[in-house]
Order: sequence, then structure tokens, then C-alpha cells
Amino acid sequence: MKALVLEPDLRLAIRDIQLPETLGPKDLRIKIHSVGICGSDVHYYKHGSIGPFVVREPMVLGHEASGTVIELGAEVKNFKLGDRVCMEPGIPDAESEQSRTGYYNLDPAVRFWATPPIHGVLCPSVVHPASFTYKLPDNVSFAEGAMVEPLAVGMHAATKAVIRPGDVALVIGSGTIGMVTVLAALAGGCSKVILSDVQTEKLAIGKSLAPESVFTVNVASESLGDVVAAVTGGRGVDVVFECSGNGRAAASVFEHLAFAGRVVFVGMPAGPVSYDVVAAQLKEARVEHVFRYANVYAKALSLMGSGKIDLKPLITDSFGFEDSIEAFDFAAAMPPSSVKVQIVMGE
Amino acid sequence: MKALVLEPDLRLAIRDIQLPETLGPKDLRIKIHSVGICGSDVHYYKHGSIGPFVVREPMVLGHEASGTVIELGAEVKNFKLGDRVCMEPGIPDAESEQSRTGYYNLDPAVRFWATPPIHGVLCPSVVHPASFTYKLPDNVSFAEGAMVEPLAVGMHAATKAVIRPGDVALVIGSGTIGMVTVLAALAGGCSKVILSDVQTEKLAIGKSLAPESVFTVNVASESLGDVVAAVTGGRGVDVVFECSGNGRAAASVFEHLAFAGRVVFVGMPAGPVSYDVVAAQLKEARVEHVFRYANVYAKALSLMGSGKIDLKPLITDSFGFEDSIEAFDFAAAMPPSSVKVQIVMGE
Amino acid sequence: MKALVLEPDLRLAIRDIQLPETLGPKDLRIKIHSVGICGSDVHYYKHGSIGPFVVREPMVLGHEASGTVIELGAEVKNFKLGDRVCMEPGIPDAESEQSRTGYYNLDPAVRFWATPPIHGVLCPSVVHPASFTYKLPDNVSFAEGAMVEPLAVGMHAATKAVIRPGDVALVIGSGTIGMVTVLAALAGGCSKVILSDVQTEKLAIGKSLAPESVFTVNVASESLGDVVAAVTGGRGVDVVFECSGNGRAAASVFEHLAFAGRVVFVGMPAGPVSYDVVAAQLKEARVEHVFRYANVYAKALSLMGSGKIDLKPLITDSFGFEDSIEAFDFAAAMPPSSVKVQIVMGE
Amino acid sequence: MKALVLEPDLRLAIRDIQLPETLGPKDLRIKIHSVGICGSDVHYYKHGSIGPFVVREPMVLGHEASGTVIELGAEVKNFKLGDRVCMEPGIPDAESEQSRTGYYNLDPAVRFWATPPIHGVLCPSVVHPASFTYKLPDNVSFAEGAMVEPLAVGMHAATKAVIRPGDVALVIGSGTIGMVTVLAALAGGCSKVILSDVQTEKLAIGKSLAPESVFTVNVASESLGDVVAAVTGGRGVDVVFECSGNGRAAASVFEHLAFAGRVVFVGMPAGPVSYDVVAAQLKEARVEHVFRYANVYAKALSLMGSGKIDLKPLITDSFGFEDSIEAFDFAAAMPPSSVKVQIVMGE
Repeated sequence: MKALVLEPDLRLAIRDIQLPETLGPKDLRIKIHSVGICGSDVHYYKHGSIGPFVVREPMVLGHEASGTVIELGAEVKNFKLGDRVCMEPGIPDAESEQSRTGYYNLDPAVRFWATPPIHGVLCPSVVHPASFTYKLPDNVSFAEGAMVEPLAVGMHAATKAVIRPGDVALVIGSGTIGMVTVLAALAGGCSKVILSDVQTEKLAIGKSLAPESVFTVNVASESLGDVVAAVTGGRGVDVVFECSGNGRAAASVFEHLAFAGRVVFVGMPAGPVSYDVVAAQLKEARVEHVFRYANVYAKALSLMGSGKIDLKPLITDSFGFEDSIEAFDFAAAMPPSSVKVQIVMGE
Repeated sequence: MKALVLEPDLRLAIRDIQLPETLGPKDLRIKIHSVGICGSDVHYYKHGSIGPFVVREPMVLGHEASGTVIELGAEVKNFKLGDRVCMEPGIPDAESEQSRTGYYNLDPAVRFWATPPIHGVLCPSVVHPASFTYKLPDNVSFAEGAMVEPLAVGMHAATKAVIRPGDVALVIGSGTIGMVTVLAALAGGCSKVILSDVQTEKLAIGKSLAPESVFTVNVASESLGDVVAAVTGGRGVDVVFECSGNGRAAASVFEHLAFAGRVVFVGMPAGPVSYDVVAAQLKEARVEHVFRYANVYAKALSLMGSGKIDLKPLITDSFGFEDSIEAFDFAAAMPPSSVKVQIVMGE
Repeated sequence: MKALVLEPDLRLAIRDIQLPETLGPKDLRIKIHSVGICGSDVHYYKHGSIGPFVVREPMVLGHEASGTVIELGAEVKNFKLGDRVCMEPGIPDAESEQSRTGYYNLDPAVRFWATPPIHGVLCPSVVHPASFTYKLPDNVSFAEGAMVEPLAVGMHAATKAVIRPGDVALVIGSGTIGMVTVLAALAGGCSKVILSDVQTEKLAIGKSLAPESVFTVNVASESLGDVVAAVTGGRGVDVVFECSGNGRAAASVFEHLAFAGRVVFVGMPAGPVSYDVVAAQLKEARVEHVFRYANVYAKALSLMGSGKIDLKPLITDSFGFEDSIEAFDFAAAMPPSSVKVQIVMGE
Repeated sequence: MKALVLEPDLRLAIRDIQLPETLGPKDLRIKIHSVGICGSDVHYYKHGSIGPFVVREPMVLGHEASGTVIELGAEVKNFKLGDRVCMEPGIPDAESEQSRTGYYNLDPAVRFWATPPIHGVLCPSVVHPASFTYKLPDNVSFAEGAMVEPLAVGMHAATKAVIRPGDVALVIGSGTIGMVTVLAALAGGCSKVILSDVQTEKLAIGKSLAPESVFTVNVASESLGDVVAAVTGGRGVDVVFECSGNGRAAASVFEHLAFAGRVVFVGMPAGPVSYDVVAAQLKEARVEHVFRYANVYAKALSLMGSGKIDLKPLITDSFGFEDSIEAFDFAAAMPPSSVKVQIVMGE
């Protein structure tokens, strides 16, 4: 099968590779349509590893995917040939304590696409468990379907925040994850979201997602405190979503928070951050930490199907499969006006 | 002061009446602009009592109100003359155990407008604590401001439901409370709401609130189960809001619920209902019961200010103060195409 | 294998029967030591069915069991030969949506011992997944180990109640489930438990579980309201555990509840109960419904190991395997001074 | 009135001072019996300030108190002369948003005993609102009554931790707050508590609180990780209570935590701590921060009344009022075998 393969020496090539193709009784075979390029894909391409995960064998990249069902395992119900679908890229051990308690994302034995040594899905087709595959509503395109994976991160963060209807949130960082968190926070009950970053172009895209509800702050030139005070009448925000992974931003999460507010750490800082326990105590802040997502795909698709979440403004760039290397180089140099780069597989 | 007064013998008249007018240091004097007519107002008018609350002395009606600040108590901050506001109609004892734990709505000593022996606000002006008065956003009219009180019931129900982003809800009953619950559920994170009733006109208004997200079912002619199955892919709904107060509807709340779903009893049935404990157990349903609301006005106004909740379609009929009796008779006979009747005070 | 077999015609006999004995790679083979007789076992013996579950083929009874590991599947870790263990009797489909979200007890495909057509464990040995098998602490006997199953029901109810430290609970019904709920509620944070029933002997056993913390009320002769008022200083209880399954008791659950209190329906009434929605609304009661249990065995054993839960007073009667039929007849006629009848397998 | 007065120049003296003595209609006059010395009292004595709170005027010390009701305000119900009581030392503005939502401890306008400029209660009698005064159960002594204030900190932390029955906790730090947190965690549902510190004598006292349930670790000589692994079977603890305020300890809170565990920051570190966001994310830890307490006094007293919490082992030293200065010097030099020093007022 022809796939986009990253070699241990960081060369990237479209080449033939032997991939597992056995269809189990509860599996689907899915023809891949669209695949988004994630920051982690680019990081493997440029550095060959993320933390303990090292590319030691040739590995197919890509884990944000949508496609079409082309073969059904013997015991599969609820799917039929031709169904348009997207897929969760991580398959846990269903019998682990984590899975059994609803935290399958934390199962240490999870097999996650394009995380060494597991192959990703920048290839013509893939075999996947039906139980981690989701049908796309008719009004959701393949391109949007391939965006459900990053959206799931925002959905999971918004779920953990236990938003009360009408809460005001601050989202720090306007990368892809910040953007989908804005959408999930608004769809999930927030009345208003303040989005902070230093990239004017990104903030403009964020504003465009919901002009009446999104307030942007370029912290390079504007006072975040002033905007928070104006939007919240001096109360502070109910929820902070830290999506930048920036250590300095992470250190300031309690500053703009209302009493009894919640902070969700979504971004992953490179090292320990400075943390003001007493500031958090004076407000009795609750802090949640999220890792990927669990049990949110169906809910994300329901919100997309009813028009409450529109991911199209975030899909800024698209390349054919044959131009995959160009796509990766583009994503690695990511211009500020781009959010998500996708690769579309050919017929 | 000229007010709309209900006599113990159920005569209704605009007449002079002596009302408390002393302005305390933490109070505001508010010129009344708009007042909605609630089912409870009509019930007092027609029957003279609700449960233990009996009209034994002449009582001014009306508790859904908006207006303009015309005088400030000596210690009041955060308000200025001319502020456009709406008001919570119930003032609890701030030192009760209920208040201290965040349940001030359950304080048995609460003084609630137009609940005997407390006067309502169908009169030119009223004195009210600043701490239970809320400024209207610029884009919220007085008419909408007078709708915050019923909306607060829906907001409180949606808050108690602990909606997760993307949940699907069933709202039973399309009266005013059902309608505002639809709005609150959607604003509060639901992807879709199924609204059931037997009045076609009401269902059409409900559908108009959010055509892509609201699915209506006339249970006189359609199968609610079929619609639930179609909308939820057979899973059942995550939340049921029982807003009809109808005993038979209340008895069926677990039928369409997904496992681990939540039921919120908003409507008040006239007597005990038949309750299927085992059906609830097999789904481990959680059932919440709400009484009025607490701590939701500011959040409701924030959602109205950002355009996520639009109450205008629900304000179907308006009368001048001088036509108050006609307004009450209209509300008592409420045509199916009407939802909320309001009275506008003159200059 | 010789087992206690219930025939479809309700004859009970110790006889040879062919049972599944294949040891999978993640399974344990467990020599059975003690098996408690549950009300459901007796019900099948006397009536041949419970709801939709009908004994159509010969079925081995018993699902409350402890024993010793005598063979390990090839992939089993964390167990060794000779480990003393108890077992969860229900094995769900790990890939169902219920399992994946932490509600495996609600999986409709669950295979539960001694629920037709699944055999129980009143037999010399059984094959069971290691992931649903739990080691007994050294200070926990086999007899106590076989009590973890009913205790798990109380633990699950106490977990769902979200007890705050110092809460006061009312437990309605002093059968086995009421008793273990008393223990779980006290271990789980309650300061005091009021236990109501009409059997004086049972109440005395309940009192003996924690004389300083348990207050008993024989509702045939005493006023429950008076006791609740005395114990709670007039506030009402924070939590009601309805463990009687009695329709009249179930109808009164809100009467003695404090505002913002919680009710947990543990017992299964024979039909719908009369439910006072308005009473629940005036207190904003939260009602939880539990079905069996999930994810509580390890926690139950931890409480038993540290001495915070002592089940010994509840194990009132013990029979040898050869006297199993006598044991069942004793359990069917259960004297008021007995709580749990167990059968001990021979060597 | 003769009181223990701290002068701005840090002299401490028993001397006459004019104190507010007006009894409002909802107040009680309480003859003080026992007063515990808190670390904050000692800190004001030695340093004259805590953060922004500076002793600029002579101030009476002491806020952990019990006593006897000697006069009733005109509107007071539920109390009578001679009632033995303890008191919450902080009185919030009941109408603040914090109070109204159940977070009265976070009200910035709270008036807290012995926090400048508010006088404490090391004096013969005090006037206090009845709504913040609590009757002592008959089996609770005045000395224990004066311990409810520090216990309330542990109760609040245990409440915020949302302990599930059978959870295992780690308490870091065996000062007074660590000790009461051990008691509250065990009473609140934990099966076992691991207590870590470097003072052998303190750990021995901690162990004595519940020998079967408390496991102590002297981290100067023992491996905390080994003990956590042994006690939890390798899972890690469900809850960490950080009670040391030590920066290095605070930086390690995620190390021994199980997935989906909770951390409660109780101790107040002197400055920002190093915080490992990614470690918390991989476990999806929830972190709560507590400030003093709210709505827990009655529940603490209920647990003391039923014998589930016994504070007597923590009251190690007692002085007469006339020896107050000696008591403060003793407390300032606190030997490792002492936990709480109290002052008993004379007749």
C-alpha cells in the first residue's frame, strides 16, 4: 500500500509499505478521504520523537481522518457500505481499569495512530474497530469530519469545565486547539469567550467564529485585564482554558478568574510552570487537566449536525496526497493566517 | 399610587393603594416599564389562591418586570440614575441556612412579589434591593427584560441538568416555561431539543426558536418514541425537562431517556404522579427538582446580550396599563398562538 | 461437576451438570469456598423467574462467592495460585457504550451469574475473568468475602449519594441491603444513620453495627418524624436510602428530607409508586437510582481491610454444601433474627 | 474588659481594653471558655502581620473558641441561656455574591476574629451572631469545642475532595491542619490515610488517631513511593491533601496520585510552587484549592457527637488565661510532641 512514511532518519516519502490489513469481526475497513496535519505529526517529522515516543521504525503519519466504509466485519451492526465516517485514533484496552471507569484515554496501553510504533492513516485505507468509528451527519463534509479529532480536544476540555449556562470563558492561545475550544465553549454553554494571543491574524479568525460572542485580545499590545473587566463587569471569568502551552501564560491563569472559577489546562507546557497556590486558594479555584478526550465524538458530531459548531473557517489549506511532503513543509512553516492544513487522498 | 389591585373577592381594578415606598440604604427606586403576566397571576385572579397562599387582603399583581432606576439608596454602588434594569421578584432572608448555602430560592421566609401577602409590581414604581436588580445590556429591550423572570426558570433547570456539550434534550410541554427551557437548554450546551406538546401552534413557535436544532412532536398525532429514536440514533435523550405539569407526561419521563440520563421536574403537577422506580434504576437516571431559580439572572442576561438567547418570539401580546384588565382576561383565555402577554406602563 | 441445580420445574438438587470449564488467557480458575444466598436465588427457587428472566433450562444457583485461585490463564498477572479472592458476578461487554463510559452495570449484554440462562457458582470451581476478581485482605475471611457482593450494592448507593462528611442519612428497610447500606453510609462519611423498619429483631442487629451512630425506628410503633427531628435538630436528613422496595415507604421519601437533600432508590418496588413532585421541588431534592454496582469492589475491600466495615454481624447462618436445599428452605422462611445465610463448599 | 492584647510594637499583655459589646437582636453574648492558639496568632505575635493584614492598632488575639451563652438578642430562637457553644470566627456580608452562592468564606468583606483590624476573643465574653454559633453535643467538651475551628479546615478540604467511599488519601504534613485533615478524611469516607512528614513524634500522634487506617511515612528516612505502592497495590492514592505549605512537597503532589485522582491544596506556600502540568494531564488530576471553610461546623459537630471524630489526642497543652503569654511563647517554640495549645479562661 502506498503511504506517507516517516523514516527514523526523518526523511518523509510516499512509498509502498506493508500495513496490517486483517479485518476482525468487529472491525470496519475504511477508505481514507481527508487527513488533517496535527502539530504532533509535524513534530515527529522535524524531531523524530515526542517525549518517550521515538520513531525507531518507518511510520505512517496522520491521525485526524475521515473516510468511507468499504468492508464490514462479520459481527458489525449499525454500519453499512458507503457510510461516511470519522474515527477516534486511539484504541484502548477495553478491560483496563481506566477504560472500565470511563477514562479510556488514560489507559497506558492505548494504541494511538501515528504515535510510535503505531502507524497512522495517510494511506488509502485502514482497518478500525466499529466501536471507535462515527457516522458523519449529511451536512458534515469529509474535510469537517477530519476536524472532529482536534475538536474532540476542545469538547473534552469544555465537558470537564462543567460550564454553567451563561458562563464567560477565557481561552489562552489561538492555535487549532484554542480555536476548537472557543467553539466547544460557546456550543457548550458559555455566553462569551475572550480569546488571547499575540497573532493578529489568528485572533481575527477566532473573532470570525462568532463575532457577537468572541472578544479578542492581543496581549502584545492590549491589557487582558481591562478586557476581562469590561466583558465580565469586573467579576472575572468563570472558566480559563489554557491552550497555549506557554509557561508564562500558564502561570497567570488565576489572575483573571472569578471566585469559584475553573481552570482547564489543555496545552502541554515544555516543563514545570510557576503556580500561585495562594491566588488559587483565595478564589477556591478548581483546576482540571485534560489528556486527549474520551466519549465526546458523538456529541461533537451532533453539534456539527445541528449547525451549532461550524469548523469550516478553521480548514484553511488543503493539499492532494501526492503533495503530502509539500503539505508537511507548509504546516511546519505555518503562516499566521492558516489554522488547519489537510491532505485529501485521491480516488 | 395607582396600581392593578386584586381584591379578596377577585375583583380586579386599577385603583389607588398605599404601597411601601421607604428607600433603604441598599435599595433602588425603580420606575416600572414592562410587566409580564404569569400563569400564577392569572390563577390568583381566577381562584384567589395557590396552595397555602390565599389573597386575604387587596394585593397588587405582577412579578415579571423591567424598568428604570430613578433613585439610589445611600450605600448603593454599581447603579446610576437612568439604568435600565430587571429585578428578581423574591427576596430571601440572607442569613437563613438556605441562603448561606446557595439555595436562597428555598428559604421559607422569602418575600416574593404578588404572592400573598406581598404586593406585586403592576404600579408606577417600586423599591427593591440593589443586590437583586440587574442591568439590561444595551441590545435587550424592556419587554425582553421583563421576560428574564420566566427565562430564569429555564436557566435554573438547564443549570441543574448539568448538560454536557452536545447532549440531546426532550422538553415536555410548550407553554412559556417549556419555551424558555428550550432556549436555555440550547444555549446551555444541548445540540438538539425535542419539544413535545399537543398544540400545533405552540409547537410551531417552538420550532421557530431554532429551526435546525428544535424537533417538534405533536403527541396527539405523532409517536414521540419514533422521533426520539430518529434524533438520537436509538440512544434516547440525555436530559428530559418535564415542563407540562401534566401527570401522565410526568409518569413517562424515563421512557425516552438514555442510560445515565437526567430528568428535571420543572412543571408542578396538581397531585402525586405515578413513578416507575425500576425503569429509572435500569438506566440509573438522576432526577432533579427545581423551584423557581437562584443565581441565574446575570447569566441569563449575558446570554441575551451576546445574542445566544432571543426572547422576542415569545412576547406575543402587549397591552397598555390602562387596559390591564383586558390583558388579564386575554391571558386567562390565552389563544394557542400566544405565549407571553405583557403590560406596558405609561409615561 | 456436582452443583446445586434448579430445574425449570423448580426442583432443587445437588447433581452432576456439565459446566463451561475452558480457561481463557485472561481467566482464573477459582475453587469456590463460600456462597451467600440472595433473595433473587430464593425467588428463582420459589417462582422460576424474575421479570423477563425465566428459568427455562437447568441452572446452577448462587452469585455471592469467595474462593481460592487454583489455575491462572496464560496472560494473567497480579494473581498467583492460592490467592484468596471474591468475584463480581456480572461480566459486561467491555466494548459497549455503557462499559466505555463507566456504567458497565447497565450494559444490556451483561452475563450475570444465576440469572437465566447464565449458571451460578454453587459448584466446586468456576472460571472467571481476572479483571473481575479481587484479592481478599488477610483479615477478611471467606465468609466475609462472599458478602462483598451485597455490600457492593450499598457501596454503590453510598457513592451515588455523594455524601458530604457529616451528613445524616435515613435508611428505609433493614434487610440485607438496608444493613449493608447502613455500613456503607457510615463508612462513606455519614455521621449518623437512622434505620427504619417494622422488625424489632432486625433493627436490633442494625443498631449493633454502630451503636453510637445508628438510630433505629420501628415505624409500626414509633414516629419516624420525631426521631428524624431529634437526630437532625429539625433540619431533616441529608440523604434517604430507600432499601425496602415497599411502595408506601417509597412514596414518603421526601417527607423527612432536608432541603437540597438526596434520595437514592435502592430497593425495587413491585410496581409504580406514588411520587410527590411538588414536595421534591420545594426541597430541590436530587433523586438517584441504582442498579447493582460498578467499580466499587476494590473500595469495599479496602474499607473491610482497614476495619471500617465489619460484615461479620450480618452473617447469621451457615450450612454445608451437602445441606444446600435445607439452606434454601431456611432462607425462604428467613426468621427475623437472621440476615445472611451462606453455604460453605466442602474440601 | 481584661483581654490578651497584642500591641503594634509586638508586646503582648493582659490588659483592659474597650471592646464592642452591643448586643444586636440576632446576636448572642457568649462567655468564653477555651481558646486555641493558632499558627496565625503566633505569627502576628512574632511578626505583626500576615500578608496585607498588619497590626496597626492594639488587637485582642484568638479565634478558636468555645463558651457559654449568657445573653440572647431579642429575635434569637434556637438558643437558650447556658447553652454550651462554639463559634465561627468569620462573619461575611450576607448579601455579597460570594455569600449568596454558598462561598461566604471568599467574601472579601468578611470580618474575621484576630485578623486586623478585628479583635479576637481572648477575653471574658464576646458578642456574636447566633447564625454563626453552634451548640456543642453533650459529649463534646469545651476544649474539643475550641478545636472545631481548625477541624473545620480539614472538613472543608475533605468535602471539596468529593471522597468516594473507600478512597485512599495521602496527607502531606502532620501539623494541626494535617492532623484534622486525617480525621476528616477518614470520617469522610477514606478507607486509609497515608500521613507524611519529617517529625517522628508528630507522625506517632497521627498514627494513634486510627492505628488500623493511618500509615505514616517519615520522608526523611523512608520512601513515600514505596508506602503508597504497598498501601494502594500500585494504583496510587485517590486524593492528596497538601497540608504542609512546603514548596517542595507541593511540587510533588501528582507523583503518588492515581489516574482521575484529586489534589487539595490546604497549606499556603510562601511563594509560587513548581507545578508539573503534564504529569497532572496524564492522570487527568483535579486540583481543588480551599480557603478556610464554609457550611461545615454543624457537620463537624455531628461527627464529633457520634464519636466518629475524636479531637482529644490533638489537645496536648493547656494554660490558664493568666498564663497566656507563657502559652504563646510555648506555642511559638512548639515542641514536636505538641499539637494544639489552648488557653482556658477563668471563672
